[in-house]
Amino acid sequence: MHNAIAVLDSGVGGLTVVKEVLRQLPQEKVIYFGDTARTPYGPRSPEEVVLFTRQIVDYLTQFEPKMIVIACNTATAVALEDIRSRVEIPVVGVIAPGARAAIKHTRRGTVGVIGTEGTVKSRAYEYALKEISPQLEIVSLACPTFVPLVESGQFLSDHAKETVRITLEPIRRFPLDCLILGCTHYPFLTGAIREGMGPDVTLISSAEETAREISAILYHRGQLAKADRTPVHQFFCSGDPVMFKQIACAWLEKYMDASPVVWQVPTIV
Amino acid sequence: MHNAIAVLDSGVGGLTVVKEVLRQLPQEKVIYFGDTARTPYGPRSPEEVVLFTRQIVDYLTQFEPKMIVIACNTATAVALEDIRSRVEIPVVGVIAPGARAAIKHTRRGTVGVIGTEGTVKSRAYEYALKEISPQLEIVSLACPTFVPLVESGQFLSDHAKETVRITLEPIRRFPLDCLILGCTHYPFLTGAIREGMGPDVTLISSAEETAREISAILYHRGQLAKADRTPVHQFFCSGDPVMFKQIACAWLEKYMDASPVVWQVPTIV
Repeated sequence: MHNAIAVLDSGVGGLTVVKEVLRQLPQEKVIYFGDTARTPYGPRSPEEVVLFTRQIVDYLTQFEPKMIVIACNTATAVALEDIRSRVEIPVVGVIAPGARAAIKHTRRGTVGVIGTEGTVKSRAYEYALKEISPQLEIVSLACPTFVPLVESGQFLSDHAKETVRITLEPIRRFPLDCLILGCTHYPFLTGAIREGMGPDVTLISSAEETAREISAILYHRGQLAKADRTPVHQFFCSGDPVMFKQIACAWLEKYMDASPVVWQVPTIV
Repeated sequence: MHNAIAVLDSGVGGLTVVKEVLRQLPQEKVIYFGDTARTPYGPRSPEEVVLFTRQIVDYLTQFEPKMIVIACNTATAVALEDIRSRVEIPVVGVIAPGARAAIKHTRRGTVGVIGTEGTVKSRAYEYALKEISPQLEIVSLACPTFVPLVESGQFLSDHAKETVRITLEPIRRFPLDCLILGCTHYPFLTGAIREGMGPDVTLISSAEETAREISAILYHRGQLAKADRTPVHQFFCSGDPVMFKQIACAWLEKYMDASPVVWQVPTIV
């Protein structure tokens, strides 16, 4: 029962999900794969994203994880059902948890969604929200500049803040009471997005909500980790490990002392 | 696939869960049983609560529900595992969802819980919280006066406000950032509890959180209701149907127009 939760992403964005898993489920072991050599997935064709996701899932399967988490909205939008049909263990995406949190939160019935071009074009949030609650109004905006800001480590700069503010302008005039950060990279930009949207709009982090849904699913399957040993996490990336490790350490700082971490660059891609 | 979600409670408290199910899952059909003749469950022995819960589950099983929701913290604390072992469908309690929401929310690591004497004595929230996150500090307080205020329909009176304020005093001096309303009756008293605790403490409604967890579990089982017909809800109580209907109508007002409702008094108890 010490099997890991395997988390995959197009790059470093999924680390926001990892951070929340480490925070909300401190007894769980995490194995992470960031496809930093091929990031971003947002502008890629669905066929390519499905292929890449399959490759990473095949790689992660060697560790016999108890769950696969597709911590990338673009990959969740196009590859979730495909991966579900290929493995026996639960596969959790990042779209449904954010949608459910928005449904719980909204009182006005108008929900905002920001994401990559791929996610917005797929209308995956709209489908997920309306499948459960058909009366909702959904306002979406693609923010293609946000992921490169995060992947290049510039997410705290003044340039980042200004880019975020200008990008969000078109969505500000709608009567939203919540905005789904429909890309796992976006929590890196939370401060700037909060400033851009103003105090009346609650930001919903798909990372926080996905970690909570992981908790619920493991609980209902009787698979939550027990407190009998310290988990050892493993991190893999397909690109430059120096930049990856630097961003991961800065982002996961608080949780890096508690548990030993193994860093590896695999050869699959 | 038009099977209902069956919700049971010791009285009217579980209507707070029903309200959230109707709000967050407007396509789902609900069958409710309130054991108003034998309320409250809080001061009863665990054996008695298990027996009563089994009787109600046996009654509800005739409707072939797709899920049983034990919308009563006292019954969840003592009867959840027993009921799980007796039925094939998922059984959802109200304790784990509130615990998970508190874990997601807390940054200070100190979580408050208020509930009936039965729930607090069972330490069920403490176990649920520490099973997932052993480092948390938990502060609990039994509020035995709250349920009678709600069941007698007095939840908006000045007397109710004053009772709530005085009862909460012992828990106010702890550095809580969230307080779990560990009894499904308590959302009726949300205004008074919020006033009593001050603006820095976020109230976590086990009703809201349970509805969201119901959504997650049905989704992962492929059992969410489709938008192809208007659900007809059914409400049963074991005691005086006049008072029950009055409280239910006042509480669920907004959702009573949309769907036809059947009111019945069964003969099981």
